[in-house]
Amino acid sequence: MTRSPLAQPFPDLPAIDGAIPRTARAGYKDWDRNDLSFVVLDPGTTVAGVLTQSRCPSPEVDWCRAALTLGQARALVVNAGNSNAFTGARGREAVEAIAARTAQALGCRPSDVFVASTGVIGVPLPVDKAEAGLDRAFASLPCGWREVTDAIGTTDTFPKGATVRAVVDGRTVTLVGVIKGSGMIAPDMATMLGFIFTDAAASPEFLQRALSHANAHSFSCITVDGDTSTSDTVLAFATGHAGNAPLADDDSLGADAFRASLDDLCRQLALLVVRDGEGATKLIEVRVTGAESDRSAHRVAQSIANSPLVKTAIAGEDANWGRVVMAVGKAGEPADRDLLAIRFGDTQVARAGVAVEGYHEAPVAAHLKSSEIEIGVNLGLGEGAATMWTCDLTHGYISINADYRS
Amino acid sequence: MTRSPLAQPFPDLPAIDGAIPRTARAGYKDWDRNDLSFVVLDPGTTVAGVLTQSRCPSPEVDWCRAALTLGQARALVVNAGNSNAFTGARGREAVEAIAARTAQALGCRPSDVFVASTGVIGVPLPVDKAEAGLDRAFASLPCGWREVTDAIGTTDTFPKGATVRAVVDGRTVTLVGVIKGSGMIAPDMATMLGFIFTDAAASPEFLQRALSHANAHSFSCITVDGDTSTSDTVLAFATGHAGNAPLADDDSLGADAFRASLDDLCRQLALLVVRDGEGATKLIEVRVTGAESDRSAHRVAQSIANSPLVKTAIAGEDANWGRVVMAVGKAGEPADRDLLAIRFGDTQVARAGVAVEGYHEAPVAAHLKSSEIEIGVNLGLGEGAATMWTCDLTHGYISINADYRS
Repeated sequence: MTRSPLAQPFPDLPAIDGAIPRTARAGYKDWDRNDLSFVVLDPGTTVAGVLTQSRCPSPEVDWCRAALTLGQARALVVNAGNSNAFTGARGREAVEAIAARTAQALGCRPSDVFVASTGVIGVPLPVDKAEAGLDRAFASLPCGWREVTDAIGTTDTFPKGATVRAVVDGRTVTLVGVIKGSGMIAPDMATMLGFIFTDAAASPEFLQRALSHANAHSFSCITVDGDTSTSDTVLAFATGHAGNAPLADDDSLGADAFRASLDDLCRQLALLVVRDGEGATKLIEVRVTGAESDRSAHRVAQSIANSPLVKTAIAGEDANWGRVVMAVGKAGEPADRDLLAIRFGDTQVARAGVAVEGYHEAPVAAHLKSSEIEIGVNLGLGEGAATMWTCDLTHGYISINADYRS
Repeated sequence: MTRSPLAQPFPDLPAIDGAIPRTARAGYKDWDRNDLSFVVLDPGTTVAGVLTQSRCPSPEVDWCRAALTLGQARALVVNAGNSNAFTGARGREAVEAIAARTAQALGCRPSDVFVASTGVIGVPLPVDKAEAGLDRAFASLPCGWREVTDAIGTTDTFPKGATVRAVVDGRTVTLVGVIKGSGMIAPDMATMLGFIFTDAAASPEFLQRALSHANAHSFSCITVDGDTSTSDTVLAFATGHAGNAPLADDDSLGADAFRASLDDLCRQLALLVVRDGEGATKLIEVRVTGAESDRSAHRVAQSIANSPLVKTAIAGEDANWGRVVMAVGKAGEPADRDLLAIRFGDTQVARAGVAVEGYHEAPVAAHLKSSEIEIGVNLGLGEGAATMWTCDLTHGYISINADYRS
């Protein structure tokens, strides 16, 4: 797979006290790489998660949804190369077997074990390979986050991770996140597999609210192809080793700082996924303002960001704002054609429902040649605003997806 | 433009008594072809229409919506090469000028003149070119429907028309339809520009109900790229020259026969548009059954038909039913993963939420190599059913749309 031209270098990710990663080779596919990740979490670790809203979720998603109600985690197991989705009873049994074996090794409850899988749909995860892979992971030396990132990837063309720090209750807490995803990426859920680890102490309820908020402004605001996966999962684990008084509610010391850092981390991770969008050559930010509500703005932004005609126009470096008008119109949200204003980068190209006479084409052309594109739409109706991030639609997307064999 | 491999030969379209077509060259673009169509309709002609649900419609759409409330038509004017959408007051004035000049020539009301335009968005239709083109059309000899089809096309790769007959009140009535469209095609509205002419006598109310019904099962069930145009218009004109007692309600003699013929005609026309879908190499029929309601089935079918991952899989002749599961799951409609059944052609590939063990791959592979593909999904929940038609997503779509300059 050719590395995305929008790839970014992998950052130095610090260790998180109380979270020990390992990887191993389960051999889910016929490849020469580690494809099972295993992170041991110290007792007392809390967990929060956001999961796909697909009506056909994988058994891993079902498992995590149930386990999240307890809020405690001792381990994370991630399988790459087989999503185990749409595999009926055999798929469920595979997840139960993984949780049981891990629980036995750690002396914890199966519900303390979180499981996520990614890859082909419709093939039951082979339990014998999973168990042998787990045994190898149990016996292996700890590794760094980079190795985990490599082991959770599938069609990704570069490894994706980020880290932020915040001061909470006088202690510096660290958050790291790793994520995988490139295609079958669509908003309105947690997108693909992302895992966040922090040494902060936080109640599961606080962590869940903070993660849900961050998700609404990050993973739920990206789209590569509008296709929502069956397996999308983002989990956040807090080991508590930083020693801060546990974050419990809005009034907790450092709650704002922690939430801001988590928002930042999630946005970084989400944008990395768009940068690895299948066939992407340009990162596109769609900013909608002046809508009747934020929700309405989000839907209009979504309509633009998912429009194949807008995305191919950007691929062709064509300032085709007529297609933006089309996408606003089809969103079904309140809009008044004669109030609409559109900009590319900093250049206004349409205002009050008509083209801006003699707008400067040179800065627009220069902006469209760059690799980061901004489309701004002002509906002129109210105060609602939203941002979505997407990528262009190119021959690369077709090549990847008309060939990738299920 | 390469002719679509799914193109069909243009049929012999009979004349419709009371509807006289002409074409002329207005020169909306720098091309050597007729781009203005003008159909004179005898006094007494009734009209019905379905128009885009876009919130940013063209002034032509606004004009037709208002004129349809009167139910009478004396002329149709169609401009190709400029959609006149998103052009503010100047666009509205252009439509008013065309209607006024035509009304003056025919001695009718401006509201008896129906106007539709297709092409680039955001450039006001030049009134001088329109008026000169109209004058040329007034002075020209009548032509056949094939010439109209050629004159209304833009990015179409083949001309599209169909005809049907029905016996109404002892008289044989004839319906002909011409349509244009290839990209910016999405369901839930009348798609692109389509015009239907019949010599049947029918009240505007009857004609509207019949057209709305036909639309719901034809134009609203196709998608090329999920992108709804600002200008979609389908108009049906009934001259009454066949001499039947006017169709007025469900009990009118021949009402059923007329409606069945109109349904048939609209479906033929809609499928021709999909066959000319940008870059299409395969016509895909998505049939969803077992849904909780027809509406729910339609939404699931839409989700599948609009999924770029499903459409690229078909382009790659890949029986990737996991992507069909994904698209069912993301539709947000009631679905139970463990009841889902999926077929390609006549071969069941998944049942009760798992792959059918050892299904015959040979007939599936043979089916996927053909140019007409069937995807069947049974949700196993109820009696709701719906069918959508779409095409595959190929390099051709990218080439056409990343190059086509606004």
